[in-house]
Amino acid sequence: MGLVFLFVGKTKEGFIKEGIGKYLDLLRKNKIEVEVRELKGSAGTSPQKAVEDEGEAILERVLPSDFLVALDERGMLAGSVELAGQLGALFDSGRRVIFAVGGPFGLAEKVKARSGLLLSLSRLTFTHEMARLILLEQVYRSITITRGRTYHY
Amino acid sequence: MGLVFLFVGKTKEGFIKEGIGKYLDLLRKNKIEVEVRELKGSAGTSPQKAVEDEGEAILERVLPSDFLVALDERGMLAGSVELAGQLGALFDSGRRVIFAVGGPFGLAEKVKARSGLLLSLSRLTFTHEMARLILLEQVYRSITITRGRTYHY
Repeated sequence: MGLVFLFVGKTKEGFIKEGIGKYLDLLRKNKIEVEVRELKGSAGTSPQKAVEDEGEAILERVLPSDFLVALDERGMLAGSVELAGQLGALFDSGRRVIFAVGGPFGLAEKVKARSGLLLSLSRLTFTHEMARLILLEQVYRSITITRGRTYHY
Repeated sequence: MGLVFLFVGKTKEGFIKEGIGKYLDLLRKNKIEVEVRELKGSAGTSPQKAVEDEGEAILERVLPSDFLVALDERGMLAGSVELAGQLGALFDSGRRVIFAVGGPFGLAEKVKARSGLLLSLSRLTFTHEMARLILLEQVYRSITITRGRTYHY
């Protein structure tokens, strides 16, 4: 089992980087193989073109056997326990799970179409950097829930 | 107009403190009077007792003229624009707005009963420290939305 986080654009905000690093460490301490890839944001001639280019760069990294989770504001609004159940089943399947988080203009339709799960973190709109941090925290939480560990608040 | 954030317990996580500091600075640069008060978490004999004690400490700081927003997972699940509309109207009213975020066991019923708005950030459960950061970011976002400024992603 392995997890890959594909983020469009570099994480610039210091506190976000630090928080992401914390959850990556915690995942690795739990023997989860995890990798973060920051893909270059496209300097396309229009937001539409940029999103298309970024979508291609994402899909180039997705193998046919991978399970793709795409973050999208119109996706499933899960609760933590429900999300843990879904992710737990995925983790148990042994498939590699890829989480794709778009840049400021979101993800291309072809990425959403390829995904097995469209996930929304909240009805609130977060910056795409905050979305990364929240996603990492929730994936870590999911793993502690499915493994029955106490999550320290 | 002033904003007060009442948090139960100290913020311990470094990256969360840093993120909260960033949004406080941004709010102040926008000439918003803002204050954070971290109330001591109660070492009550039971979670129920602790929540009760913490609730009293919160309500002691709320004046009759204040508008109280209580964070609660069963509260209103707002989108960012909707939240901005509600907070914008509140800010315009000139009333002081107090946001109360509980500790690990949440807020007392009496705090929720006093509140004018029960707000849920997401169906996901966040640590109470992450909830602080997300709340600050959303309040800042609300202010940029109501003032028509571009929010930089």
